[in-house]
Amino acid sequence: MSYTLQDHQYGKAETRLVRIYRDAPRHEIRDVNVTTALRGSFEDAYLTGDQSKVLPTDSQKNTAYAFAKEHGLGSIEDFGLTLARHFVDDVEPVSGARIEIEEFSWRRAVVDGAEHDHTWLRTGPEIRTAAITVEGEGDARREHVIGGVKDLVLLKSTGSEFAGFLKDGYTTLPETHDRVMATSVVAKWRFATVDVDWEDTYTRITAALVKEFATLQSLALQQTLWHMGTAALDAVPELAEIRLVAPNKHHFVVDLSPFGSENPNEVFFAADRPYGLIEATIVRDGAPDAGSAWRASAGLA
Amino acid sequence: MSYTLQDHQYGKAETRLVRIYRDAPRHEIRDVNVTTALRGSFEDAYLTGDQSKVLPTDSQKNTAYAFAKEHGLGSIEDFGLTLARHFVDDVEPVSGARIEIEEFSWRRAVVDGAEHDHTWLRTGPEIRTAAITVEGEGDARREHVIGGVKDLVLLKSTGSEFAGFLKDGYTTLPETHDRVMATSVVAKWRFATVDVDWEDTYTRITAALVKEFATLQSLALQQTLWHMGTAALDAVPELAEIRLVAPNKHHFVVDLSPFGSENPNEVFFAADRPYGLIEATIVRDGAPDAGSAWRASAGLA
Amino acid sequence: MSYTLQDHQYGKAETRLVRIYRDAPRHEIRDVNVTTALRGSFEDAYLTGDQSKVLPTDSQKNTAYAFAKEHGLGSIEDFGLTLARHFVDDVEPVSGARIEIEEFSWRRAVVDGAEHDHTWLRTGPEIRTAAITVEGEGDARREHVIGGVKDLVLLKSTGSEFAGFLKDGYTTLPETHDRVMATSVVAKWRFATVDVDWEDTYTRITAALVKEFATLQSLALQQTLWHMGTAALDAVPELAEIRLVAPNKHHFVVDLSPFGSENPNEVFFAADRPYGLIEATIVRDGAPDAGSAWRASAGLA
Amino acid sequence: MSYTLQDHQYGKAETRLVRIYRDAPRHEIRDVNVTTALRGSFEDAYLTGDQSKVLPTDSQKNTAYAFAKEHGLGSIEDFGLTLARHFVDDVEPVSGARIEIEEFSWRRAVVDGAEHDHTWLRTGPEIRTAAITVEGEGDARREHVIGGVKDLVLLKSTGSEFAGFLKDGYTTLPETHDRVMATSVVAKWRFATVDVDWEDTYTRITAALVKEFATLQSLALQQTLWHMGTAALDAVPELAEIRLVAPNKHHFVVDLSPFGSENPNEVFFAADRPYGLIEATIVRDGAPDAGSAWRASAGLA
Repeated sequence: MSYTLQDHQYGKAETRLVRIYRDAPRHEIRDVNVTTALRGSFEDAYLTGDQSKVLPTDSQKNTAYAFAKEHGLGSIEDFGLTLARHFVDDVEPVSGARIEIEEFSWRRAVVDGAEHDHTWLRTGPEIRTAAITVEGEGDARREHVIGGVKDLVLLKSTGSEFAGFLKDGYTTLPETHDRVMATSVVAKWRFATVDVDWEDTYTRITAALVKEFATLQSLALQQTLWHMGTAALDAVPELAEIRLVAPNKHHFVVDLSPFGSENPNEVFFAADRPYGLIEATIVRDGAPDAGSAWRASAGLA
Repeated sequence: MSYTLQDHQYGKAETRLVRIYRDAPRHEIRDVNVTTALRGSFEDAYLTGDQSKVLPTDSQKNTAYAFAKEHGLGSIEDFGLTLARHFVDDVEPVSGARIEIEEFSWRRAVVDGAEHDHTWLRTGPEIRTAAITVEGEGDARREHVIGGVKDLVLLKSTGSEFAGFLKDGYTTLPETHDRVMATSVVAKWRFATVDVDWEDTYTRITAALVKEFATLQSLALQQTLWHMGTAALDAVPELAEIRLVAPNKHHFVVDLSPFGSENPNEVFFAADRPYGLIEATIVRDGAPDAGSAWRASAGLA
Repeated sequence: MSYTLQDHQYGKAETRLVRIYRDAPRHEIRDVNVTTALRGSFEDAYLTGDQSKVLPTDSQKNTAYAFAKEHGLGSIEDFGLTLARHFVDDVEPVSGARIEIEEFSWRRAVVDGAEHDHTWLRTGPEIRTAAITVEGEGDARREHVIGGVKDLVLLKSTGSEFAGFLKDGYTTLPETHDRVMATSVVAKWRFATVDVDWEDTYTRITAALVKEFATLQSLALQQTLWHMGTAALDAVPELAEIRLVAPNKHHFVVDLSPFGSENPNEVFFAADRPYGLIEATIVRDGAPDAGSAWRASAGLA
Repeated sequence: MSYTLQDHQYGKAETRLVRIYRDAPRHEIRDVNVTTALRGSFEDAYLTGDQSKVLPTDSQKNTAYAFAKEHGLGSIEDFGLTLARHFVDDVEPVSGARIEIEEFSWRRAVVDGAEHDHTWLRTGPEIRTAAITVEGEGDARREHVIGGVKDLVLLKSTGSEFAGFLKDGYTTLPETHDRVMATSVVAKWRFATVDVDWEDTYTRITAALVKEFATLQSLALQQTLWHMGTAALDAVPELAEIRLVAPNKHHFVVDLSPFGSENPNEVFFAADRPYGLIEATIVRDGAPDAGSAWRASAGLA
């Protein structure tokens, strides 16, 4: 019997890095979680244990820290591109690099009505994400940037229905024309180019997602996702594609009739599990091919 | 050999309850996690298995839901008092009730510059907490309210020192006069009365905590906690006491010298574990006795 | 501008299901977490909000519970196949189903040296997993079964080296010929057929993974993964492929020299983050094509 | 207005420490999480910021690591006593020390039927715990040891009832004489002495807890806890007291009647929240006073 090592990659996950800018009295902060993965001709490391082509994951961690000083840490999409290009261009056995970054948000402390220069409060729960893939050299160079947001928790207390669905022998769900809809959106959007104002587009995309969730009369979470996604594509022409995964965080109307009360959508049990899970991939017609943009992992994703 | 059942209590933990107010087009939302615990003469339930004095935890859950409709859910301190008084007054074997509530914050979605009527985003990570204890009847009635906040994550990028400390044979830490200080505050404050504007005091206490963290030149997290606590007591005369627990979330300056860079407090490794843990209890002189206010549990806290 | 809905799926995630067999005095238990996802012509649900082809996720949950009674719950691979075939065959708009199941392990309580008939203790942390995909009808029918284990936490206190690696300007890691190696393996293996003794193969695969981790002199985690994977393929001819993801859970030797002690690999700091992350996909030569076996999600994996 | 600093303590939490014994080919492993807290005359650190009496938490961490080498790491109760005595005896401003330790279990890998010398698998989920308090000098010296276990997850599929309970206007729960009972026990036991075989007592206590859970016909979780606790006190005369906290991890019988199936306690929904929470403190008559044994925290527990 013989076997083949197919996809493989290795890297350093979750390097926690905080970058303070303190050149002026009003400091700035960037708080990120950096994961780097390298691809290339590393077969010998697996098959024979020869590590001569393997840049240690510890060096990748060091590189993230050093680059935050040498190159600065502004938009995470830019920082990811800088790191990825370095690994591909400067580390000989590396033919491709995948950089994934989470950014945690801080808001300035407000003291006596004024924003403080060097004190912040963590805010969220939503987390900005980026996934950068760089591969190839010269004409074969390909660069992909995926931006995103996760843990964007939204709830609307009306304006949501679910009716007219298929019924089979296991269906007991009643139809409803007024329910709470809540979700925790994970959205990832692929840019058609790397020449982008990352901060501005992030703001416009998330605003479009929220606005559509709020204003659309929802007939199902599926329909809501389609409209959220197309609204984001409408708002930012640089986007080629958006992918959305959204749990239906069920809020069940509690039956208060045994206690003599009506409950016209006022008191809810917020359930943990199970939950619906709805997914959609929406692509702009004519968008450039995704190539390896979505390839996160060597195997299990 | 013989044994005695000493402290005991039982209840329903983590009833997840969302209350929507929808009488006007502009809805309101309250999102809470309610834990109820009953104390009283429940020895038979333990010793002989006789449950005749035991109100099921399921009924406690039902009561929380029913009361959110019947009595409404405004400030969590009020809701806790209402529930606790009910259990003590209306359920015969119950001599004391402990209600703990967490409240999750939502901010209104902003659509085209205007706050939306019925759509919200979860915000945080800080969570408002309350712990209410009611016990006794008639003249023996005692009511305690503890308000609080947890997961209040704060960071300042300068204005923090740690020097002049005790050194023993296991001390290798260098002194510093400029470091990042970050923490995730858990604060609980005991009110001297139950006649309080709970919303207003919460705002003033948390503002005082944040202001003091921001503006005090910190010589240690211990000193910071003392000043945060006394600032809260200064701000709200109804407070009898405040207790603070704060991890020192270490941000270590990364040594970039091997890579030819200086690092004047610009690039940090945000560590997970271990972390310093600092605690303080600060009591207003002359404050009424705490009684059972702080007794959370029958045993293990 | 126009957009296309590409991949999409929806389902019910994390239906927590416990099945007790109590026909004999010696009961049996199966404790699982079931996630179902349906694929098919659901475009209208997204684009127009027409739900007439959408079987509610609530019905999918009901089906899981009902099938645990009607068809029984033995091996999770079998249960997943039964559910998936049902959705594809019996629910008209469904052309493909993906079922993912986690199984939690229980060991019988031992009382006075004997296994108890109806009491168990949870055991782990390792969790058995399965991912079943069924699609198409008639000759186009394809059925894929992926078994797996996650959270299989392994540690060896010697027999692990890391040396001879590539060094760049960001490399400070010293070489070592004796270190602790610890990991938390996620392994997923694809079967070439659905005619398998699922229980026996699970036992043999995990035994092979553990044995190889233990006995191989490791030159790197990459090499260890290759050998673990090929050992599993050796042990179970029905396997077409195995994919492994393994964090390098770093155990750093603590420098005790400031305190006058040597530390010859005896006292370690077990770090949380960052960690190395090594991935490998190993395919048996001549194995049948994976088709959609690995497609977990419509988008984000 | 004036305020008083009452209880206060500080320390280092969650020092993750792995100790390997490798003097013989068959290695041994101890994997612990150490939290140290110091009490004493630290008021100046809080009130004026003077740190001259404060041994840094970093030094406490170093001490834990150094002691694991210098003194070895056997039973966690012993290790905690050694650390606590050191802080009180050797660090002048320290008048009391509280050491809390969690121990994670590993089982040896079995390779071809034999236990491996230097490879282990993590096992659990139960975690052994210890909390040691040492305070005072000379005749005033007091030493308290609390052992424990947490995350001990138990389930019995019959032999559990809940009936004859109190009913009020919010009670809808039906009575049952046969249900699944599942819990995740947290138990802490106080020793009357520090002259104890810690390994042997741990084994006997946990065996007694499990046996009683399994064999008692349960009329309520309250009754089960009482019997578990007294069984532990019976089994180990050195115990003065035991405290138990146990969630009632509800397993609800799924109504399969809409699908034409009966469900005689065979198919269950394992719920996450809410859950019952039952607590009991059981003290051996004539046991020595607990003193500060249970004081975990300066405030919030």
